Amino acid sequence: MTEEIVVIPGDGIGQEVVPAAIDVLQATGIDFEFVEAAAGDHVADEGGDPLPDETRELAATADATLFGAAGESAADVILPLRDAVDSFVNVRPARTYPGVDALKPGMDVVFLRENTEGVYAGHESRLTDDVSTLTRVVSKSASERLAEYACEFAPEGFTVAHKANVMRETDGLFRDSVVDVAEANGVETDTALMDAIAMHLCLRPEEYDTIVCPNLAGDVLSDLSAGLVGGLGLLPSANIGEERALFEPVHGTAPDIAGQGVANPCATVLSAAMLLDYLDYDDEADNVRDAVEGVLAHGPRTPDLGGDATTTDVTNAIVERL
Amino acid sequence: MTEEIVVIPGDGIGQEVVPAAIDVLQATGIDFEFVEAAAGDHVADEGGDPLPDETRELAATADATLFGAAGESAADVILPLRDAVDSFVNVRPARTYPGVDALKPGMDVVFLRENTEGVYAGHESRLTDDVSTLTRVVSKSASERLAEYACEFAPEGFTVAHKANVMRETDGLFRDSVVDVAEANGVETDTALMDAIAMHLCLRPEEYDTIVCPNLAGDVLSDLSAGLVGGLGLLPSANIGEERALFEPVHGTAPDIAGQGVANPCATVLSAAMLLDYLDYDDEADNVRDAVEGVLAHGPRTPDLGGDATTTDVTNAIVERL
Ligand SMILES: CC(C)[C@H](C(=O)O)[C@@H](O)C(=O)O
Ligand SMILES: CC(C)[C@H](C(=O)O)[C@@H](O)C(=O)O
Repeated sequence: MTEEIVVIPGDGIGQEVVPAAIDVLQATGIDFEFVEAAAGDHVADEGGDPLPDETRELAATADATLFGAAGESAADVILPLRDAVDSFVNVRPARTYPGVDALKPGMDVVFLRENTEGVYAGHESRLTDDVSTLTRVVSKSASERLAEYACEFAPEGFTVAHKANVMRETDGLFRDSVVDVAEANGVETDTALMDAIAMHLCLRPEEYDTIVCPNLAGDVLSDLSAGLVGGLGLLPSANIGEERALFEPVHGTAPDIAGQGVANPCATVLSAAMLLDYLDYDDEADNVRDAVEGVLAHGPRTPDLGGDATTTDVTNAIVERL
Repeated sequence: MTEEIVVIPGDGIGQEVVPAAIDVLQATGIDFEFVEAAAGDHVADEGGDPLPDETRELAATADATLFGAAGESAADVILPLRDAVDSFVNVRPARTYPGVDALKPGMDVVFLRENTEGVYAGHESRLTDDVSTLTRVVSKSASERLAEYACEFAPEGFTVAHKANVMRETDGLFRDSVVDVAEANGVETDTALMDAIAMHLCLRPEEYDTIVCPNLAGDVLSDLSAGLVGGLGLLPSANIGEERALFEPVHGTAPDIAGQGVANPCATVLSAAMLLDYLDYDDEADNVRDAVEGVLAHGPRTPDLGGDATTTDVTNAIVERL
């Protein structure tokens, strides 16, 4: 069976790291067909919609989509794409690797970020010349769906992040709904304030395994963790829906190095490994991860990790290890 | 002239670190009168309001209030107290000290946190059994008032944190209002997404000096910075209003060590130094900071910093250095 994958390189280094990940996927021997679609600033600059209908439609019907990065138009591209695949959770692993300098070497945390609501549901208005408002939305059903996923993902238990001491009704509903589902499934949880988690991640990240978060909390805590493990070049992510999913590195377009052929492909290759997991190619997914780990440990490395290798050097080295 | 200061030790180690800070204030030779007021879980446990009217009234009329910490009732105590002193900015310096282990030794950042609105303005409702909402409020006037303060505080320029790619109207208004005031005052700014700042603080905190933040962003980014400088035991804060102000350590009640006499008094003593700044005792404020710095560099140190000194040992050592 041919697996059809939509690929959206986007802008900047997206154009370099997505082809790298395709090379790695092709080297697994699985029969893939890649359908490329356009999105991002370069489409908008030519007078188009940064997320053309056709691209949206392709993502909304494919089993899996691999996305690179978008520039100024990022929010106009990635938020509708997450919606197009009906993803309710954004899975963001943040771990350190032997061979890569990290502020917190023992870190290995996965964020399960609510992917549909919170401030991202974003009903905003400028009430008066002086006052603007945003309606943050938290529903029991979305929180429960996330919690069901978390129970399967982390049957050994997880932490629930919230700010229910201030957002009593909304984050209270989030926290309580998640904890109730976990209890019903016999899964242990602890709950913690998002500000306290931000601090503890810096001090003792080894105390966390899986952290279930409201949308914006997941955004900030996972970016902070990127800083702790040594930068965004290593963080993959998966936007998971019931029927389809979209995979993307956590990093952006890196305009400072775009076009030079030295972008670190690891975050996108690791996102491709999550895509393999999603399509049930478990062995191939593990092989890709092992290959990335081997390259991180022994080189070659791109400049962001202190090396002088190119994107192609690193990609070839990963492929050779498969 | 006698300076009347309201002191609210609160719960847990608040009962230990506030008396320590009073000892230091008294040792400055300034003529202080301290009026103690009750608040926190221990008041609620006896059937009272965690923030008694009398305490609120005292803070609302005093020039300056020194607060310790509150337990479960923290939000019910500290948020109304910030409001009682009409504070529009929460000033949170986060720096490292010679002699104290820190993840990021070169860090020296001050957060200017909007202190009246954002999600803290908190109009919440449970619309249906499934759906809850919170109305986040951002006003031009509050953003401008914060910006005026920031221009005086950091005439050399500052960074504006926001998430206007998602919260376009509200954080857009915040960002633009702050930048406009800065421009009108000839003060340079740069703007950055709060998630990106969270990461960059871990990687290159030396790139930041002063960061102006919406309320919740300031909460999370300053707690994260506490992690980077070695823990909450060192972070003071000032809630500044036009007429009065309230000073508090960023840490909480530390129930695990409360009552043992080993709490680190430095965050509260440094908060007292900010109180001295506010009352224009600049030399005394500098002396207190120098004394704390000397003790951190040469000891004695409390257990949270790897020492075995008591709160009293550290307080006496600070007083001796004045
Ligand atoms: C581009 C932006 C809308 C996005 C988000 O906030 O989710 C980004 O920060 C991310 O984390 O993928
Ligand atoms: C206790 C809580 C309401 C408070 C806040 O969120 O402001 C605390 O986290 C702080 O930062 O002082």
